[in-house]
Amino acid sequence: MSFGVVEGDPDGLTVAEIDGHPFGQISFTSQRWALADVRLLSPILPSKVVCVGRNYAEHAAELGNEVPKEPLLFLKPSTSVIGPRDAIRLPQQSKQVEHEAELAVVIGPPGARRADRAAAERAIFGYTCANDVTARDLQKADVQFTRAKGFDSFCPLGPWITTGLDVSDLEVRCEVNEEVRQLGRTKDLIFDVPTLVSYVSHVMTLLPGDVILTGTPAGVSPIAAGDTVTVRVEGIGDLANPVVALD
Amino acid sequence: MSFGVVEGDPDGLTVAEIDGHPFGQISFTSQRWALADVRLLSPILPSKVVCVGRNYAEHAAELGNEVPKEPLLFLKPSTSVIGPRDAIRLPQQSKQVEHEAELAVVIGPPGARRADRAAAERAIFGYTCANDVTARDLQKADVQFTRAKGFDSFCPLGPWITTGLDVSDLEVRCEVNEEVRQLGRTKDLIFDVPTLVSYVSHVMTLLPGDVILTGTPAGVSPIAAGDTVTVRVEGIGDLANPVVALD
Repeated sequence: MSFGVVEGDPDGLTVAEIDGHPFGQISFTSQRWALADVRLLSPILPSKVVCVGRNYAEHAAELGNEVPKEPLLFLKPSTSVIGPRDAIRLPQQSKQVEHEAELAVVIGPPGARRADRAAAERAIFGYTCANDVTARDLQKADVQFTRAKGFDSFCPLGPWITTGLDVSDLEVRCEVNEEVRQLGRTKDLIFDVPTLVSYVSHVMTLLPGDVILTGTPAGVSPIAAGDTVTVRVEGIGDLANPVVALD
Repeated sequence: MSFGVVEGDPDGLTVAEIDGHPFGQISFTSQRWALADVRLLSPILPSKVVCVGRNYAEHAAELGNEVPKEPLLFLKPSTSVIGPRDAIRLPQQSKQVEHEAELAVVIGPPGARRADRAAAERAIFGYTCANDVTARDLQKADVQFTRAKGFDSFCPLGPWITTGLDVSDLEVRCEVNEEVRQLGRTKDLIFDVPTLVSYVSHVMTLLPGDVILTGTPAGVSPIAAGDTVTVRVEGIGDLANPVVALD
């Protein structure tokens, strides 16, 4: 297992292997592969995944919620993280598991603690796609989101981390079996990315590799065994995961 | 920094240094210190801290809540963990920070996934004391517990991990400046320890070193800068932390 840089034109992407971890000075080994010949894992193993609820007005409304006055935070455990093409496993406890396509922020070194807006922007290493998979029935029953959003495999991340991206107005899309279910734009985020990073960093120190999920647009809907769910954030790429029953 | 075994009689405890990590086969170095000459850190750096709300009936009632039908789970970030004598830092966002004394379960290798009751008991490495520090005003305002319980320094753990302990009926006590504020017994846990470990493991895989906080008895109350909060679980020891203002 190693890190690499994805480069080239969209029809012929290649992966150039990095010597060590991408958070340091990047130096390349001599290894190059066609992207199709590589199995991508989650591009980061975060110490924590901090999520933001109700950050698009239309999504808050579709679940009957008000837009919050401050960012609404919750956590997904690191054990929920999977990579591209890994299976989302439907737990027996739920009869209604849903997709939530999101833009994810990856924090770089040295992290962020009580960062103002400018420091928050500097703390961002890059962006990836995320699926904040949610057992909607358990979320409603529990009130606390932890169980509903914390099952193993409920946090697909990937396909890679895109650096140097202007995320102020990107399309966020979710397709289930190539049918579009969610379609939003990051310009409609109630709290924008620097605001979120700064806000979280005033509560808990963000460590390098930590991930913030910025909220999901309207259109959340159930997924079933046999489906393939694809999250696509403009300028990043496709995060596709099959859905399987746990047993 | 190293791990050690605390041994000897209560009036003359010593620490015997371990070569490596205590989750493997334990072998000792030749180093021995008097406990008073050692600075104790948090005895474990968990990948996640899973907490259980409203697990004592009297505490649920004092905050006006029903006893839940299933364990009520939430997470504290690993960045909230501090050790014995480290300062609990009061954030500017809250005017009402409270102590919550708890028995904490430390998971050992190889962890637990979908463990039945017997497997859950085998997955337990030992026990320590925890203080589930909570910004009560933010907890009520946010509904989600994440911010209120997730600030840096809001999860004191320690003073050490006690193995081989029967936790079915232990006193759980909290003192603020030597005044008793909380006094409960683990026999009054609504969901007992093996039930909790099994339940959590059916949601999220528990990794070695992960910690489960089992809930707090009645008597939670505010703490202020200058206070010292001491959590004492019978058969384990004292976890004492000073309280300071953040700035």
